[in-house]
Amino acid sequence: MRNDQREVNNLRPIKMTTNYISHPEGSVLIEMGNTKVICNASIEDRVPPFMRGQGKGWITAEYSMLPRATAQRNIRESSKGKVSGRTMEIQRLIGRALRSVVNLNKIGERTIWVDCDVIQADGGTRTASITGAYVAVVLALGKLLEKKSISKMPVTDYLAAISVGVLPGGTEILDLNYEEDFKALVDMNIVMTGAGEFVEIQGTGEEATFSHNQLQNMLKLANEGIQQIIETQKEMIGELANRIGETNPV
Amino acid sequence: MRNDQREVNNLRPIKMTTNYISHPEGSVLIEMGNTKVICNASIEDRVPPFMRGQGKGWITAEYSMLPRATAQRNIRESSKGKVSGRTMEIQRLIGRALRSVVNLNKIGERTIWVDCDVIQADGGTRTASITGAYVAVVLALGKLLEKKSISKMPVTDYLAAISVGVLPGGTEILDLNYEEDFKALVDMNIVMTGAGEFVEIQGTGEEATFSHNQLQNMLKLANEGIQQIIETQKEMIGELANRIGETNPV
Amino acid sequence: MRNDQREVNNLRPIKMTTNYISHPEGSVLIEMGNTKVICNASIEDRVPPFMRGQGKGWITAEYSMLPRATAQRNIRESSKGKVSGRTMEIQRLIGRALRSVVNLNKIGERTIWVDCDVIQADGGTRTASITGAYVAVVLALGKLLEKKSISKMPVTDYLAAISVGVLPGGTEILDLNYEEDFKALVDMNIVMTGAGEFVEIQGTGEEATFSHNQLQNMLKLANEGIQQIIETQKEMIGELANRIGETNPV
Amino acid sequence: MRNDQREVNNLRPIKMTTNYISHPEGSVLIEMGNTKVICNASIEDRVPPFMRGQGKGWITAEYSMLPRATAQRNIRESSKGKVSGRTMEIQRLIGRALRSVVNLNKIGERTIWVDCDVIQADGGTRTASITGAYVAVVLALGKLLEKKSISKMPVTDYLAAISVGVLPGGTEILDLNYEEDFKALVDMNIVMTGAGEFVEIQGTGEEATFSHNQLQNMLKLANEGIQQIIETQKEMIGELANRIGETNPV
Amino acid sequence: MRNDQREVNNLRPIKMTTNYISHPEGSVLIEMGNTKVICNASIEDRVPPFMRGQGKGWITAEYSMLPRATAQRNIRESSKGKVSGRTMEIQRLIGRALRSVVNLNKIGERTIWVDCDVIQADGGTRTASITGAYVAVVLALGKLLEKKSISKMPVTDYLAAISVGVLPGGTEILDLNYEEDFKALVDMNIVMTGAGEFVEIQGTGEEATFSHNQLQNMLKLANEGIQQIIETQKEMIGELANRIGETNPV
Amino acid sequence: MRNDQREVNNLRPIKMTTNYISHPEGSVLIEMGNTKVICNASIEDRVPPFMRGQGKGWITAEYSMLPRATAQRNIRESSKGKVSGRTMEIQRLIGRALRSVVNLNKIGERTIWVDCDVIQADGGTRTASITGAYVAVVLALGKLLEKKSISKMPVTDYLAAISVGVLPGGTEILDLNYEEDFKALVDMNIVMTGAGEFVEIQGTGEEATFSHNQLQNMLKLANEGIQQIIETQKEMIGELANRIGETNPV
Repeated sequence: MRNDQREVNNLRPIKMTTNYISHPEGSVLIEMGNTKVICNASIEDRVPPFMRGQGKGWITAEYSMLPRATAQRNIRESSKGKVSGRTMEIQRLIGRALRSVVNLNKIGERTIWVDCDVIQADGGTRTASITGAYVAVVLALGKLLEKKSISKMPVTDYLAAISVGVLPGGTEILDLNYEEDFKALVDMNIVMTGAGEFVEIQGTGEEATFSHNQLQNMLKLANEGIQQIIETQKEMIGELANRIGETNPV
Repeated sequence: MRNDQREVNNLRPIKMTTNYISHPEGSVLIEMGNTKVICNASIEDRVPPFMRGQGKGWITAEYSMLPRATAQRNIRESSKGKVSGRTMEIQRLIGRALRSVVNLNKIGERTIWVDCDVIQADGGTRTASITGAYVAVVLALGKLLEKKSISKMPVTDYLAAISVGVLPGGTEILDLNYEEDFKALVDMNIVMTGAGEFVEIQGTGEEATFSHNQLQNMLKLANEGIQQIIETQKEMIGELANRIGETNPV
Repeated sequence: MRNDQREVNNLRPIKMTTNYISHPEGSVLIEMGNTKVICNASIEDRVPPFMRGQGKGWITAEYSMLPRATAQRNIRESSKGKVSGRTMEIQRLIGRALRSVVNLNKIGERTIWVDCDVIQADGGTRTASITGAYVAVVLALGKLLEKKSISKMPVTDYLAAISVGVLPGGTEILDLNYEEDFKALVDMNIVMTGAGEFVEIQGTGEEATFSHNQLQNMLKLANEGIQQIIETQKEMIGELANRIGETNPV
Repeated sequence: MRNDQREVNNLRPIKMTTNYISHPEGSVLIEMGNTKVICNASIEDRVPPFMRGQGKGWITAEYSMLPRATAQRNIRESSKGKVSGRTMEIQRLIGRALRSVVNLNKIGERTIWVDCDVIQADGGTRTASITGAYVAVVLALGKLLEKKSISKMPVTDYLAAISVGVLPGGTEILDLNYEEDFKALVDMNIVMTGAGEFVEIQGTGEEATFSHNQLQNMLKLANEGIQQIIETQKEMIGELANRIGETNPV
Repeated sequence: MRNDQREVNNLRPIKMTTNYISHPEGSVLIEMGNTKVICNASIEDRVPPFMRGQGKGWITAEYSMLPRATAQRNIRESSKGKVSGRTMEIQRLIGRALRSVVNLNKIGERTIWVDCDVIQADGGTRTASITGAYVAVVLALGKLLEKKSISKMPVTDYLAAISVGVLPGGTEILDLNYEEDFKALVDMNIVMTGAGEFVEIQGTGEEATFSHNQLQNMLKLANEGIQQIIETQKEMIGELANRIGETNPV
Repeated sequence: MRNDQREVNNLRPIKMTTNYISHPEGSVLIEMGNTKVICNASIEDRVPPFMRGQGKGWITAEYSMLPRATAQRNIRESSKGKVSGRTMEIQRLIGRALRSVVNLNKIGERTIWVDCDVIQADGGTRTASITGAYVAVVLALGKLLEKKSISKMPVTDYLAAISVGVLPGGTEILDLNYEEDFKALVDMNIVMTGAGEFVEIQGTGEEATFSHNQLQNMLKLANEGIQQIIETQKEMIGELANRIGETNPV
């Protein structure tokens, strides 16, 4: 039925390679089908000027695509001299999502820089970025635990994201690839925690609208998909899995 | 209970002044409580290069705040030399929402430029912008009908937006003012049509999360609020109200 | 004789609405005929780095037009990523003019930010900005007097501005509207004080020149117009009028 | 009396070297005392897009200072990535002034680019730029006459500029050097034609004001100075002097 | 002797993974020790405006580093809004080098975009980029041969690059890693062809100088290193190796 | 044989005018044939933030061309809002070259700003800039010696630069003018010291390559040319010539 033979509620194969790049404190190459994103988490021992002296930390994210991550080559944003609206929306989303499951009061005056660089794109790059970045952040915080810079894991729960949508004809589907995303009437990105709470819901139907019933079906698909993804995250972080939730949310 | 004595499901007083500025084809000053936005719709007789020759039109939106629309003066984006991520998110949202209820195949090769300029801000500026811009666009299209440049009203349904949120303690509320927005745990913006369909749902809990049940309560509040706002829109567009829906959606 | 039936030495109807926007310390909507400008004065309790430690204050101005203040929509300067030469000239002029009647040694290490935002344009926007900004600044300084942050009104005299010009055929006229400005051979902006002294004279004849005699006629028209405008300013500032001139010029 | 022993109505020594740079169609090094400006006029055989097809030409000017033209080194505008308000004001002034004495209908669809680069500054750089640029433009148009690209000299009159001002104490002076400019209460730049008509008057008293009487004295000084400068211009353009005024103004 | 136990004339282990990214016409991940660069070659069926109508093609290169390719995180050039001088130098070098071995008259009016994105840096990123980009370009041109868009391989010879330098004490070494590069007195990058001809020599001693004799020793090391690298390139391009040199240089 | 009748190993006439501009601590107008560059050296009594507190100084260079230094007018980089890759390469080269012969530990926490502004271009502008800038820097440091701000001349040797190249046909030539540079197959810039050591070698053959033998011939030509140029430098710096080499290199 779907262009890659998946059932409506099937995720694409998911794979994460940890410590993919050697320099960052946390590094993950995440692959969701043909979408591949390098997620690096860097820890800097200071916070932006407006936060100094409060004893708490900050998480910020940047997102980019290699010019030829896509079928048509895109102009680099550094060449254009500015970051597009789409990029800004995505990096704000990634940062906001991660901050919802990290108790910033427990990481000291540190900034965690999250860099999500899409090296190959086939739909779902922002949700793969969140899912991979979560693991990179946990690994980076693991380094702080190891060095005893902090005493408790400040991550309060798991966090993953997935896209859902409605195809022409009205079928709701999970984890859209590029071709599906292109023709979908409705496109929704959902970020959820391990406890099944919502962190972000962003749904839009540019030349279409959607009903209350369709919304409920999409939320259900997303919930199931996210719980599966979190299982993979647990494997990737290994023993650190025992420490998630050691700290309460703010 | 609320800081301005409203019930949880009360909108702030809403007022729209049409033809507020004389030059634009459609112009509305919308006031939602103390939030005031000038919404101007301009019609240009051509489309962006990438759309030429397709016989269809385009709607695009820009959003800005006067530096002193807020309690603290903000630096102008023209002085900074770039548009912030927040501004880009909002103007993309406004444009997308309006395009969902205008059949672009029926307006010819024209661009409707929507300018939403916040002159005074007290929360809910993006939703007020959408609500006011809708009326400005209908008035501008009314001018095209009058001049017989088009023969049918290409607007397929009403469109309005409102914010909902969750206060600390867990109460869901409708139409947050600035102070409420500042302390809310969850902030959600909903755009809906006259038929009660969703156009956009954007919900976020930066340092909090929200449950399925809270989501349902917020959607219910939003739905009621939006239907009331649409009543005001109907009054503002006068006789043009009879022509909404004359054209089918794409 | 003139396109709006005015005599050569007639001003357009002038109207000022004080406290137009609620957040700024001083706020005025000035209307000169169909030209409408929101003038906000904001007080910040510090000065730019190069002035720190001198015990004196600063006044700076910014000027902008809504995209559809004009008959044709203009591109926003924030979208272009830079401020035009025309805008820079105007905001430098406004700041310079206001500084000539405020004793900056008497306002402490504070910056007065003046924002002039043209919401509807019909010629004379820069002179209306100066006239309205003067009132906004007086009102803002009135707030400092009220709070006893300063003990004397640091404004040394009134200040207003007007345009004069020469129509084809050679008639000198006062207060040009857009259509007159467009066809005028000479365009001159004059800023004067209540005492009748000049603060700025900027006259230009792009494809024309003007004689000594024409200059004298224009200066005379401007002088009369400005004294009338100052009468309106006096009414708008109410009791503060008694305190203008309490401080000597630098 | 003055810091360089000049009388109040004395110009500094003026010197122009024509054909200073070999590539431009017209090139002049102008020296007014210690102020030195390279003025180059380049002819391009097309006009900006908005003027095409009208059969007329355009003149535009750019102005810049070498970083060490001044006592303190200035940051290059190319390094800052933007042109300052002061630079924009000056280059708009130069272009406007030159256009007032060239009949643009008689130069065909050509653009004259005027570049004024200050290599050493000691006050009066904008007026020296106009005076030198006038000669460069005449020389460049002389080349077009020579090649018979045009048949009549399209320059309708001479054009020169000078500064005047008021020193503390109230003395009006002609042709201010940097030190005088720095302490002057009023600073005025005047552009006039050979016929003694005004082209531009820009007078400002930032922390001071000036009377009608002072204005008249300054205008008289300027008039005398400009007529002397024009004598030097006549010598520099040689035989082309016979052809000034061959064409009527627009 | 060297910090990684290599002899002075030893290369680091070199590895290339072809078809690393699926979208580009040619894609290579090149690893030189711990330096890893993704080199993508994209073919666009048009040339820049200034080259149109000449029947020949163009090759241009862009170079970037992921923020955390290095030990310290770097700010993205897209965030800074401009490309650094170092980046510009490198991308100009890569493009120039590749153009020296491709007969641009034989590729039609096409542009080959070469993107070199460093995902992990340990010295020698610009030379690894050239070496990897060469293979990516050959693979991309192989696609054009396959589709019969061109009939002959337009690559005239092999091309590879390497760094050489002088350590404190005066030893000349081949293929510097980051630590060596940091302490070297002289740093030289050499680009050569399969025939042993020079394409680029860029040698610099910022706080040191070097003698004629040291230069000769470095050139000899570079020559040997480059011939080894070319052996690896031959393996990577497989059967296309038979077609290198089918076309003459321009 | 050459287009200006020079022998292959002839320099163009070289002339330097010291103290050309009055404000800078060191100022030279250098002319190499028709290439003319104003080289100014400015001394600032502080270093960039990243160097503070180390007790050593810094040298940085900027390079620019007047728009009409060339046969075709170039757009100013300040108007374009960014500095080109070519400009960046050249200014990095100039700074690096000068730093190789100045012992930065001996100039205190000072920055020497070198500005090279090409007022007329005929090939070899970057090498003329280095040669002239060297003299400007020595003169500026002479001022520090005079004021006893430093006690020894921190310049360790002479420094000059020249271009060499290969014409079609294979002849190696010295000091290319614009026309020669345009048609040359290989273009190489060499910077050397008085002792005959290399500081920089930058050779490139964009659509050509060059042999080991050609390289040796070019290096020989450059060496002879540079030693001649240094003779002229010695004359220009007068008595300061006795003090070159007073300090050891770093």
